[in-house]
Amino acid sequence: MRAETEFSRELYAPIGPGGAEDAARYGRKAANLSRLAGLGMPVKPGFAVAADVVSALADRGAAALGPGFEAALAELAPGALLALRASPGRKEWGGPATLLNLGASVEGLEPRIGPCAARDATRRLIHAFAVHVGGADPEAFEYALHDLLKAHGADSEHDLDADQLDELIETFLDLHEEETGDPFPASPAAQLAAAMGAMARTWASTSARLLRVSRGGPEQGGLALIVQEMALGLGAGLSGAGRAAFRSERSGAPGIEGRMLFQAQGNDALAGLRTPRLIGAAERGEAGVRDPSLEEAAPEIADRLRALGAKAERAFQDAMTLEFTLEDGELFVLGAEPTRRSARASVRISVDLAKTGAISEEDAVLRVEPRTLSELLHPTIDPRATRDRIARGLPASPGAASGPIVFSAEAADAAAARGVPAVLVRVETSPEDIRGMHSAAAVLTVRGGMTSHAAVVARGLGTPCVVGCSGLSLDLEARELTAPDGRVFREGDQITVDGAAGEALAGAAPTVQPEFSGALAELMGWADRLRRMRVRANADTAQDARVALGFAADGIGLCRTEHMFFEKGRITPMRRMILADREADRRAALEVLLPMQRADFIGLYRVMQGRPVTIRLLDPPLHEFLPHPDEEIDDLAEVTGLTLRQLRRRIADMQEFNPMLGKRGCRLGITMPEIYQMQARAIFEALAQSWTDGPLVRPEIMIPLVSARREASLIRRDIDQIAASVAEETGKGFSYKIGVMVETPRAALRAGDLAGDMDFLSFGTNDLTQMTYGLSRDDAGRFMRDYVNSGVFAEDPFHSLDIEGVGELMMIARDRARETRIDIPLGLCGEHGGDPASIRFCEAAGFDYVSCSPFRVPIARLACAQATVLQRRLQEEAEA
Amino acid sequence: MRAETEFSRELYAPIGPGGAEDAARYGRKAANLSRLAGLGMPVKPGFAVAADVVSALADRGAAALGPGFEAALAELAPGALLALRASPGRKEWGGPATLLNLGASVEGLEPRIGPCAARDATRRLIHAFAVHVGGADPEAFEYALHDLLKAHGADSEHDLDADQLDELIETFLDLHEEETGDPFPASPAAQLAAAMGAMARTWASTSARLLRVSRGGPEQGGLALIVQEMALGLGAGLSGAGRAAFRSERSGAPGIEGRMLFQAQGNDALAGLRTPRLIGAAERGEAGVRDPSLEEAAPEIADRLRALGAKAERAFQDAMTLEFTLEDGELFVLGAEPTRRSARASVRISVDLAKTGAISEEDAVLRVEPRTLSELLHPTIDPRATRDRIARGLPASPGAASGPIVFSAEAADAAAARGVPAVLVRVETSPEDIRGMHSAAAVLTVRGGMTSHAAVVARGLGTPCVVGCSGLSLDLEARELTAPDGRVFREGDQITVDGAAGEALAGAAPTVQPEFSGALAELMGWADRLRRMRVRANADTAQDARVALGFAADGIGLCRTEHMFFEKGRITPMRRMILADREADRRAALEVLLPMQRADFIGLYRVMQGRPVTIRLLDPPLHEFLPHPDEEIDDLAEVTGLTLRQLRRRIADMQEFNPMLGKRGCRLGITMPEIYQMQARAIFEALAQSWTDGPLVRPEIMIPLVSARREASLIRRDIDQIAASVAEETGKGFSYKIGVMVETPRAALRAGDLAGDMDFLSFGTNDLTQMTYGLSRDDAGRFMRDYVNSGVFAEDPFHSLDIEGVGELMMIARDRARETRIDIPLGLCGEHGGDPASIRFCEAAGFDYVSCSPFRVPIARLACAQATVLQRRLQEEAEA
Repeated sequence: MRAETEFSRELYAPIGPGGAEDAARYGRKAANLSRLAGLGMPVKPGFAVAADVVSALADRGAAALGPGFEAALAELAPGALLALRASPGRKEWGGPATLLNLGASVEGLEPRIGPCAARDATRRLIHAFAVHVGGADPEAFEYALHDLLKAHGADSEHDLDADQLDELIETFLDLHEEETGDPFPASPAAQLAAAMGAMARTWASTSARLLRVSRGGPEQGGLALIVQEMALGLGAGLSGAGRAAFRSERSGAPGIEGRMLFQAQGNDALAGLRTPRLIGAAERGEAGVRDPSLEEAAPEIADRLRALGAKAERAFQDAMTLEFTLEDGELFVLGAEPTRRSARASVRISVDLAKTGAISEEDAVLRVEPRTLSELLHPTIDPRATRDRIARGLPASPGAASGPIVFSAEAADAAAARGVPAVLVRVETSPEDIRGMHSAAAVLTVRGGMTSHAAVVARGLGTPCVVGCSGLSLDLEARELTAPDGRVFREGDQITVDGAAGEALAGAAPTVQPEFSGALAELMGWADRLRRMRVRANADTAQDARVALGFAADGIGLCRTEHMFFEKGRITPMRRMILADREADRRAALEVLLPMQRADFIGLYRVMQGRPVTIRLLDPPLHEFLPHPDEEIDDLAEVTGLTLRQLRRRIADMQEFNPMLGKRGCRLGITMPEIYQMQARAIFEALAQSWTDGPLVRPEIMIPLVSARREASLIRRDIDQIAASVAEETGKGFSYKIGVMVETPRAALRAGDLAGDMDFLSFGTNDLTQMTYGLSRDDAGRFMRDYVNSGVFAEDPFHSLDIEGVGELMMIARDRARETRIDIPLGLCGEHGGDPASIRFCEAAGFDYVSCSPFRVPIARLACAQATVLQRRLQEEAEA
Repeated sequence: MRAETEFSRELYAPIGPGGAEDAARYGRKAANLSRLAGLGMPVKPGFAVAADVVSALADRGAAALGPGFEAALAELAPGALLALRASPGRKEWGGPATLLNLGASVEGLEPRIGPCAARDATRRLIHAFAVHVGGADPEAFEYALHDLLKAHGADSEHDLDADQLDELIETFLDLHEEETGDPFPASPAAQLAAAMGAMARTWASTSARLLRVSRGGPEQGGLALIVQEMALGLGAGLSGAGRAAFRSERSGAPGIEGRMLFQAQGNDALAGLRTPRLIGAAERGEAGVRDPSLEEAAPEIADRLRALGAKAERAFQDAMTLEFTLEDGELFVLGAEPTRRSARASVRISVDLAKTGAISEEDAVLRVEPRTLSELLHPTIDPRATRDRIARGLPASPGAASGPIVFSAEAADAAAARGVPAVLVRVETSPEDIRGMHSAAAVLTVRGGMTSHAAVVARGLGTPCVVGCSGLSLDLEARELTAPDGRVFREGDQITVDGAAGEALAGAAPTVQPEFSGALAELMGWADRLRRMRVRANADTAQDARVALGFAADGIGLCRTEHMFFEKGRITPMRRMILADREADRRAALEVLLPMQRADFIGLYRVMQGRPVTIRLLDPPLHEFLPHPDEEIDDLAEVTGLTLRQLRRRIADMQEFNPMLGKRGCRLGITMPEIYQMQARAIFEALAQSWTDGPLVRPEIMIPLVSARREASLIRRDIDQIAASVAEETGKGFSYKIGVMVETPRAALRAGDLAGDMDFLSFGTNDLTQMTYGLSRDDAGRFMRDYVNSGVFAEDPFHSLDIEGVGELMMIARDRARETRIDIPLGLCGEHGGDPASIRFCEAAGFDYVSCSPFRVPIARLACAQATVLQRRLQEEAEA
C-alpha cells in the first residue's frame, strides 16, 4: 500500500516544500510555486500533475489519471473553486491557456462573494470551458454578450445586475451545448478531468509540437499541470489580480513596478480589456497616469508585496516578478518568474546581486548575455527628443549617427576628408563600397536583410546601419531620396540613422553617448579578472586603435596594412608600383610609400604603447587597387606614362577569375619581394623612431595566405635581414615576432611544419571558412538565407564559427603546432573573434587570444570570461 | 697484418668477382665491370678505389692514399699503360673525364705498337694530363697542333710521321710546363697519383656539387675511381674502340647496332672528330651509309660482340650496351650499361625479357615508365612523309592531326558541327576557349609554355597541341596566319600539328595510327592482371566513352553533364531556364531539355553496356552558360521576351566575385531543385529505355560541391523519389548508386557523416586542391612556374597530387568514411587520376578506383599495376 501511495505522490505532488519541486517532472511554474510556498509565502493549496500523466492523458484519455488523482483532489478544501494551469518544462515552450473557476456555481459562490461576483465567476467558467475544452467558437460568446448588453443598455458586464447575469449564464449554457454538442458538465470533478484532457491533447497537437520544437522544446512530453484552489480576485473588499516587479525593467534599479486590476482574475490586467492600475507610485508619476497606483491606493499591500519580492530575490538569487491575487484584502501569490530586463538592467541586477553576496561575481558575469552589451556601447537617440521619422527598415547595426546625405562611396570619402562624416545612402552595398562605408557616419540601404553586405560590414565597423528601407526611393541622377510620405531629401541634407530602432529620421537628432561606468564597468572588471584569453582588436589606423583602447583591448590582433594604401595621396604611388614593368620602377614607387607607411606605424605604436601590435603584410590582389578600366583613368595614364589604351589593357589583364584564390597574400611577397621588404622596413624604422615615446610595442608581423612552409620561411628570412639592417643603421635593439595567418586548409594541416619556423599562428577564420566550405562570402549572400532558413546549414558559418568543419581543422592545426612547439601562441582574428559561441570554442581549444572589431571588444571580454568559467566547471564536473 | 690487408682490399678492390661488386662503395661502373669479369668476359685487370678514399684525397691530398694503394698497383702488370675512370654511384650524377694512357712513353710503347702509335698515345697523354690534371687551357694545345699540321701541310695527326710527332710531343711538353708551371711528371705512379687527386678535387668543387645535387646526388662523397690496364685501340692489326647495343633503340627488336672507330680509344667514336663506323649491317643499310659496318668488315668480331651482348642481357636481366676496345684483333670489354631506348623499345625489351624467363612479368610491368606510354597512344606523322614545316614551338600535347585553320573557339565548334574538326590557332587560350578546344582536332598557340592553359587542357583532352610558336604572327581581323618565312595561311587552309615534335606543318600530312598490339598489348594484359584498383575514364559523351573503351577503361568515373548543355540547340533552352523568373518557366525550359539529356544518357549507356557510369549532376555556376553582356544577344532577348537592357542587366547581375566558390554544384540543386530533378529523370528514363539493349549499366549519380551532410541527403531524397516514380511509370526495376564528389575540405572532414547517407565517395582532386591551397588554378598560372622553379612548391599540385596537404585530407576522409561504413567505395576523379605518383598514393590509401581522361587510361592501368606490386613488396618488407 505504501509503495502505491508513494508512486501516486510522484504523479500528483502537492505544491510546497518536499512536493512539486522538480521542474523536469512538474514544470518550472510548479517548481517555483512550491519554492514560494516553502518560503512561507501565501500560496493556496494545490498539486502538480506530472508530465508523464499528461502524456498518458493525451494517448489514453481520462483512464490514465489513475487512483492517485482522486486522492490528491481529496486533499484540497471541499467545494473550493479550482484553477488549472499549464506548467511546461520551460516557459518559452508555450502551453495551453489557464482555466479558472472550475467548480464555480451561483449557489456555491453567492454566500461567499455576493450575487453578482458569483454569477460573474460562473459565466466566466462556462465561456472559457466551452472555448478551451469544448472547442467552441469564441465569437459566438462575444456576440451573445454584446447582444445582451445592448438589450439592457449596459456598457460592460460589470453594469449587469444579478438577473441579467442569470440570463447571460442561461444563454452561455445553451451556447455551450449548441457549439460543443454536450451539456455543460455540472460536476466539478468532471469539469476538471475534461479540462486536463483538453490541455493534454492541445499540447500533443501537430501545430503545438512544431512550434515547441522550433523553440528548442521536446517533441513529446514536457508539460505538467497545476491544480490549485482559487484565490478569487472578485467579490467583496479589496480584490483583484496583477503582477509586480521589484526592479526597473529598463535600469535594473530597485523600485516596485507592474500592473493590476481590481475585481479581476489571472491575466486580466494584461488582457487590455480595461485600463490597468500601475502598481508603483514612481512609475505612475513618470508615465503621467491619473489613477492612483496600488502603492498609493493601498500602501500596506504594496509593502507586503515589496517584502515578498525581496524575499523572492534572495531565495531565487534573481530579480523576480510575482503574480498575485487579492481576495478581500488578503494577498496570495500565484507564481514567480525572473523579471524581464533590458541589457542595462541585466547588468545592474547581476552586479547588485553579487554585491549583496546573493550570487558570486563569477555567476554575475555568467548571467549577462554578451551580445546584449552592444546596445550599451553605441550612441543612442536621446529618448526625450522628438523623432521625425522618414522610413523604417531593419536594425542592422546598432548606434545612432547624423550627417549629410551622400549617394556614393566616393562622396562619403570626400565628406570624411572634409571632416564631416556623411550618411551613405545606397540601394544596396557591394565590396567596392567598403572604403566609403569605412568613412561614413552611418549607412542606409533600400534593399537587403540582416545578413546583407551592408549589414555585415557595418556591424564589423561599428557603424550604425539600417537596411531594407523598402519604402524609400532613390534617384541617383537627381541625387534625391524620396520618403514614403513624399518628402524629398537632397544630397547634403541632414538625416539621422537609428541603427538600434531600424529607423531613419529627418534632421540631426540629439544623441546620448554610451557610458562605460557604474555597474557595467564593475562587471567588466570582474570579467577581466576571470578570463584566461586575451582580447585584441582588429584595428587598421591610430583612430581605430584609440577606440579599441577605449574598450580596453589587450592589443591589436590584426592591422590590415592594405587599408593604408587606399588613402588619398597614397593610391597613386601604389598604382604606379603595381603598373611598373620593372623591379627598379616598382622599388622607386615603394620608396615613395615607405615614409607614409612608416608614419602610419608610428601613429599606431604611440597609441598602443607597450602592447602587442599584429601587423599583417599586404594581402589583397593588386588589381583591387586599380580603377576599373571603364573609369576615368586619364590622370593615372599621365602619371604612369602609359597610353589610355595600354592602361586599360593592363588593368584588364590583371583581373582574376577568382580573386579570393588568386595572386594575393604571401604570393605577392614571394613573387615581388620588394613590397614586403618595404613594409618590414617601415615597421622597424617606425619602431626605432618611437624609441623615446615610452614603453615600446612589440610588433608581431603576420604573413597572410600561407599554404606551404617554404613561403613563410623565405619571407621570414627577408624580414629578419631587414630587422638586422635597421637595428644596425639606427643602433637600436628591438624584439619582434613573425607568424603566419592560418587561413588556407593546407596551412592548418601543415601547422606542425609552420610552427617550426614561426613565432605564432593566428587563424584567419573568415578566409578559412571560405576555403573549407568552398564558398565565397561575397557570393554566398545569394543563397545563405535560404540555406539557413531551410536548415541546410545550422547557422551562417561566417557569423558563428563552424565547429564541426573549420573548428576541426583548427584543432588539427593546434595539435600539430603544439607537438612541434608546446607553447606556440595561437590566436583567432576575423569576425568570429567577437562571436560568443566561437569564443567558447577558442577557450575549449586552449587558444591564447581572440581579435575582433573594436566595438565588439567588450562583448568578447565578457564572452571570454564566461568561457573560462564554463570550461573550468566542465572540467571540474568531468573530474568529479 | 691480415686485418690491414683486408682493410686495404676494401679500399682498393680488384675488378672481378669477389672484388669491386658493391656499387655503393665502388660506383656503378666498377660494379658492372666486376660482374662482366665474373661472367668470363675479356676484361683487363684493374682495381677500384673506394669512394671514401676519393673523399679523403680531396681533403688531405695524396697522403690519403695509404699503403694499400701501392699494394693494389703492384698487382697490375709492370709497365702496363693505365686508364683512370670515374665510377660515380649513379651515372646521372656526372663525373670527371677519363684519363687514358697513363704511363705512356715512346720508348715503352714503340716495341709493342710501332713508332707512330706509340707517339700518338704519348702526346694524347700529355695533352689530356695538362688539361684535366694541370688545368691548362685546352686551346693552347689545339693551336699548337693546328700550327704544326699547317707547317707540315698535313690534314690530321694521322698524317704525321714519327719525327713530326716527336716535334709535337716536345711542343706539348713545353706547353705543359708553361701552362701549369710544372714539368710533365715522368713517373707513371706520380702521373696516376696526381690524376686521382685532380679528379677528387673536381668532384668536390662547388659547381660539380651543385650540379650533382640538382640531379639527386649526394653533396659529399659518391665518387669511386677505376684504375685499369689499358686495351690500346691504337697500333697494329684490327684496333679501335666503340659501343655496341644488341637491341634497336627505337623498337627494342634484337639486332646489333652502335658506332666505333678504328685506331681510336675510349669515346673517340662519339666525339665527332672523325666519322664513325656503324657496327650493324642492317643499321648501315637503313642509314644509307657507304662505309662497310664492323659486322661487314669483321664479321667474326661482330659475332663475338653479339655473344657477349647476349650473355650480358641474360646476366643483367636487361638489354645492355657494351663499351669495347679492339687491340690487334683482340676484343676487350670496358663497361656495360643499360641500352638507351624509346618508349616502344622499353616495352618490347621488358616483354621479351619476361617471355624468356629472364625476369618475371611483374618486373616487366615495373620497368616501363607509365608516362612514356603517351607517345604510343597517339597518331604520329608518317616518318616517310615529307615535312613542310611552318613553325616550331613546344611539344605541349602529343599526337598529330590536320584540319582547316580557325581562329576562334566558336569557329572550332562550328567546324566540328559540320563534321570537319579544325585546328584552333590562338595567341593563347583562356577558359572560355575550352569548348572550342574540345571540338578542335588540334591546338596551336603563339604564346605559352608547357604548363600554359592551352597545354594543360590539351593534354587532358588528348588533343595534339603545340604552344609558344613565337615565330608566327596572327592577324585576327584579316583572319590570317603569317609564318616566319613569310607564307600566309588563311582561315580554312589545311595545316597539321605535330604535338610530339612541337611543329606546325603546311597541308595535311599523312599520319600513322597508334597500335595497341604486340608487346604493348601483352604488357597491358599483365598489368591488368596485377592491378588492384579499377581505372575509369572521365568521359562526357558517347564519343569520349568509345575512346575510353578502346583503351579498356573499366567504366566511366566522371561524366560532366554540363558539357551537354553547351551544344547547339541546347544552349538556348538552357539560357531560357537560367533567365526564367518563376519556377514554372524554369520547369517549362527544363521540359525541353529533358529528352535531349535522356538521349545523351541512352547513347552513353549503349557504349558502356554493363559497366558503371558515374554521372555528375550539373556543377558550374549558371552564368557560365550565358553570353557576355557585350556580346550579340539580340536573339536571346527575343527568345526570352526581355528587352536588351533588361537582359544585359540580368546577365551582369548573375556574375560572381569568385565563381569557383559561388552558387554552383549542389547549391544549385538545393536552391533550384527542379534542375537536378530533370537530370535524375533523364538518367532513369534512359535506363528504362535501354532495357533491351544488353547488360544494363548501373548509374552512379554524383552530387558535386557538397560541404554539409544535409545538402547531400536532401538531394538524395529527391533522386530516390524520382527513381521510384520512373520505376513505377515504366514497370522496370533498376539499381543505381548515389554518392558525393568530395571536393571541399569540409566534405573531406565530414566524410564520416556523408558515408552514412551515401553509396560512394569520389574525390574531385582538382577543386579539392584549389580549396586546400586557397589557389585558383586559372589564376595560379601567373606565378606557378616561378613557384615551382624556385622550390617554393616542390611540384605543381594541380599536376601531381599534394600528398602532404590534399592527400592528408583524403586520408582523414577515408578513415572517417570507413569508420562509418567499412566497405564504402572510394575513388578519385580529376586530372590526378592519370598521374602515376598520385595513383601510387591512391593505392597506398586503399582506394577502389581512379578516373582520368580517356587518353591517359593506359598510363593509369600500368601505373596502378606498378602501385599494387610496389605496395605489396613494401608490406612484405615491413613484415620481414
